[in-house]
Order: sequence, then structure tokens, then C-alpha cells
Amino acid sequence: MTAILEEFRPNHIALCGGVGGAKLALGLTACLDSNQLMVVGNVGDDFEHWGFQISPDLDTLLYTLSGVSNQELGWGRDGETWAVLEEVSRLGGDAWFRLGDRDLAVHIERSARLDRGDTLSNITQDLCKAFGLDYRILPPTDDSVRTIVETNMGFMEFQEYFVRNQCEPAVTGLRYEGAEKARLLPDIHSALLNPDLQSVIISPSNPFLSIAPILAIPEFQHQLTKCRAPRIAVSPMLGAKAFKGPTAKIMRELGYEMSSFTVASYYSPNLIDGIIIDTTDSVLAPRIEKLGIQTYVTDTLMNSFSEKKRLAAEVIQFAESLQK
Amino acid sequence: MTAILEEFRPNHIALCGGVGGAKLALGLTACLDSNQLMVVGNVGDDFEHWGFQISPDLDTLLYTLSGVSNQELGWGRDGETWAVLEEVSRLGGDAWFRLGDRDLAVHIERSARLDRGDTLSNITQDLCKAFGLDYRILPPTDDSVRTIVETNMGFMEFQEYFVRNQCEPAVTGLRYEGAEKARLLPDIHSALLNPDLQSVIISPSNPFLSIAPILAIPEFQHQLTKCRAPRIAVSPMLGAKAFKGPTAKIMRELGYEMSSFTVASYYSPNLIDGIIIDTTDSVLAPRIEKLGIQTYVTDTLMNSFSEKKRLAAEVIQFAESLQK
Repeated sequence: MTAILEEFRPNHIALCGGVGGAKLALGLTACLDSNQLMVVGNVGDDFEHWGFQISPDLDTLLYTLSGVSNQELGWGRDGETWAVLEEVSRLGGDAWFRLGDRDLAVHIERSARLDRGDTLSNITQDLCKAFGLDYRILPPTDDSVRTIVETNMGFMEFQEYFVRNQCEPAVTGLRYEGAEKARLLPDIHSALLNPDLQSVIISPSNPFLSIAPILAIPEFQHQLTKCRAPRIAVSPMLGAKAFKGPTAKIMRELGYEMSSFTVASYYSPNLIDGIIIDTTDSVLAPRIEKLGIQTYVTDTLMNSFSEKKRLAAEVIQFAESLQK
Repeated sequence: MTAILEEFRPNHIALCGGVGGAKLALGLTACLDSNQLMVVGNVGDDFEHWGFQISPDLDTLLYTLSGVSNQELGWGRDGETWAVLEEVSRLGGDAWFRLGDRDLAVHIERSARLDRGDTLSNITQDLCKAFGLDYRILPPTDDSVRTIVETNMGFMEFQEYFVRNQCEPAVTGLRYEGAEKARLLPDIHSALLNPDLQSVIISPSNPFLSIAPILAIPEFQHQLTKCRAPRIAVSPMLGAKAFKGPTAKIMRELGYEMSSFTVASYYSPNLIDGIIIDTTDSVLAPRIEKLGIQTYVTDTLMNSFSEKKRLAAEVIQFAESLQK
């Protein structure tokens, strides 16, 4: 790892997926200094396209935290242009994954460095610097982990399911290819063992698609299980619906109840000590607490920056109240 | 090869390099129908950059003949934007080779199809169609041929010499890696054997860098040597200078006289029956004719479209006069 990371001992570790995870992460950066927070992104969605390695969740974090995300689209970069995509499309090429010109530049640079043997974690660090971001975004591993969605239309990579097929196939199972052998990043390992660690936060991302690929790394799961700091999840559910994306649909297809109860029981007391659920779902609190998981009820929809910051502050405060 | 090519029996074959070659090719398209002309481009300049395969000379032909070349820059595409390059540069990536956004799209599509096992000749045909071009541009081979420039600063690939080092290193030798084993495209082989073939035209491109990589393919050289149709070169020299690029400098560095005489003797009567030289150089005609090569003297600078067309017509007329 790079020298700058050796001394990095954050007090909070946030596990984040795509858009929902990035929202809470942005709230956390408003509450915590850059030396207090480590953001761990999902790499299960990573894929190859046009010959590049694309890391959509790491990039969503990068763009959101550095203030260049496209608010209008909800993905990609602000002030983006589409010259390359339009021309590739005109030439009859693959245009189902919408890559903007400036977004593409990030994939070009990442892929060029990976080809030269550099690690995803190093490259991500340098991208953070290039975007003027002091906070550290890290992949959980420099090894390949790929979410394979098993559906009624066959197995497919995540982006094929999510973008190309717009989450339409019914999900029958999920695999996190490579996770079993993936080595946890040493910096994350150290951070989990840091005696000053005050919380591990699981952001309101899709548990199956965004968080599970991180938890599927055996060393991560092992360290999280025995972690001394409070481990807090924020549920991505509002009643039977998710903030965004196919979380509820997948719950139903996999035979789960569509609610925050499923989120809590999916993580289980092995991995979380507490969960934040929306005020809409306060009725679920007693059932969740019977699992051995503490609950905290608040408004979890983060539409504005102040709501993101307020929720992040409540997460930190909830974790403090659960100090073991 | 594709079905459409099977019946293609052009009367004229033009060997073209980059900008100079594309100028004459444009003139030839003004004189000849698309079923009369085959344009063979140089692939010795092809290289990998940002993970793509780039074929600069084929693209110069494609852009010039389809009317989308950038007149101002003298390379690349008209109305080009540079969002990707600017961002890659900002991120600290390789920006020495100036790829525009729309130009990049061509490389993305070409590389994606090569990765899927398609051939460069098929892809080039489809690109011609996508650009609304009826004329056929072909690489001489679907195998890899790479021009390696041996210099006082070491061996380097062509683009490294030409773009990155701006032709500054002194050339001590040239190699056309892969040419020895490269298989001539069957369509070009058939075209060279076509009894109705009326000329093989070597455009005013750099003989060492643009034409030699084609001639270095043994089957091409063999067929051209015994070709029944007149073989005509157009010299890229004006006195001791070339129209463009490092031709004269390389002649000097390799110990040749800097003139059209060198061009004629380099090709030799084995490969050409006649050469067109500029009026400036009419004094060279007797020396060249002593080599056994006919000369035709005219204005060879092709600044305007009408000059390109006029020179192309003179090439065709000169070839007619040399019918064997």
C-alpha cells in the first residue's frame, strides 16, 4: 500500500454501495474530518466495457464526495458531454451502458494503470487526490469480486442485469465470484482492529447487491463479526419500498418480506448491533429488537444536503450510544 | 472476406500512406467510380494506446475520402471535441497522442470488434459504410505489421518516433516487424492478378515509412514485381524537401540524396514503371530514366481539390501511356 495510508487510523468505517451509499457518505463527510472516516465501496458491480475496467460504485462515491456528480441524471458527472457515446452508437457499437466523455476518461486512466500492474486501491487514492478529495475511498480488496445475478433468464453480470436488462429478470440467486479468495485490503484490516474505532456503518444500499459483495470477503466478515466497535446499518427501505433501485423487488423474488425487518435479519446480530429504520416503519422496531439488534427510528430519506448531514450525525450518535 | 468483396475487381490500386496519400486518393475518387478503385492503406503506423488499437493511416484515408477530415489541424476529424483527452490529461494520464472524442469512438469500435475476433479489413469496410463512403479502403493484411524506427535514441514504434519525439531522433534504420509472415489480403491478391487492372499507383507518401511496410509483405512485393499493369509512383519530394513530414530528413540520415531520384531508385524498376516528379525537379528526369523508369513532369503540390483531381487524372493518363 502507499505510504500515506500506513498511518491512517479512521474512527469510522462506512460500507457504501452506489447512490444511496454515496448520499450517506456525503453526510458523513459533513460531520467527520478526513482522518476520521474511511469509505469502503462496492466492487461487485465492476465490469469490463469497451475494453475498460469500470468501477461504477467507486466512481459514484468519488463524484458525489468531490461534488461533481450529475444531480439531474442521478449518476455520472456534472456538465458531462456525450460525443464518444453518440459516435460509437452511430458506428453500430455497444451503447447500452451510457458513458459520458469525462466519465470515460476516468475509466481510461484507471484501466491504463491497472494494465501497468498498479492496484485498484492505489489508483482510487490518486483519483481522489485528482478530484481534490481528502477523504479516502477504498475498494475492499484489490482482487476481483464480481456479483453474478442468477435469474429466470440465466446468469448475468450485475451491469447486464441492472442496466442492460433494467432489473426486469426475476432474481433466483446471487453469487459473489472471487470473494471467497479475495484478500481484504490491509488498511481496512488495520482499521477494523483499531482500538479507537467508534463505528462501522452499513449505508442504506441494497444489502444483496451492494453490501453483500463486501461481506462475502471471508476476512472482512470475520473481522466484522468480532469487531469491538458498534456496527450500525441504515435500512434502505421505506415500508415495502426501497429508496431507489431493485431492493424490494429482489426481496420479493428471493422469498423475503419486503421491509426493514428483512434488512435487519439479513445482516443478523452477527454483523450489526443496531439498525436505523424510517419513522414509517417504527412498528417493526419490536420485531427487530427480538433478533438482538437495537433500533433507532428517524427520517431516513436524504433529499437535501441538510438531511444527509442530520442522518449522518444521528448514525454517529446512535453508534456512540451502543459503545460496548 | 465479406461477400461484397468477392466480386470487386478494381481497375486501379492505390497504395497510400497518411496525409499525402489521402490527398491523391481523394483526387482519384474524383476521377474514378467506386468499383474502379481500391485504396490500400498503411498499417505499419498502427499502435496500441489507452488500450485501443489505433490505425492512423487508415483513419486519415477514411476521414479524408468521406469529407470529415479536419482541414485546420491537418489530421483528425472535423468539428472535433477534446473532452476525454483534457480529462485524461488532468488525471495525469498519457496525453501525448492527441485523440479527439469522435476519433476515439472509431478506435473504441474497432478495438471492440477486433477483441471479438473480427478482422481489420472487415471492420474497415464497415467503417467506410458508416461514413457513407462507397470506395473501399483496405489494409494490406489482417496480420500485424509494425514499423520499428531504429534511431540514435534506441528502437521505437512509429508513433513514438513521429508524435511523441516529433521525428527528432536520427534514423539509423527501419524494420517492418511482422511483415515477413503477414498474409496479403486475398482481395488485393486477386486485384493484382485482374487482367483488367490498369494501374498500381504509389501515392506521394513517405517511401520508407508509409509505402515500405506494404511492400515488405513478401506476397505483395512478389505480385507487384510481376504485375502486368503499369506501376506508377508519385514522388513526395519538391527539390530537396518533402511536401510534409520527415521524408527528406530520413533520406539524409540514411545516407541518400534528398531528391526524387532517391524515391525512384528506392522503388527501382522492379516495382515501378514510371514516376511523376514535380516541375521543380525536371532536371532529374534523365538520371531517373537511366534507371529504366519513365518520368512524367507536372505540378505535384495538391493544395486545392482541383489540383488533387488534376494530378490524379494525370496519373491515370500516364499509366495509360505506359500500357505494356
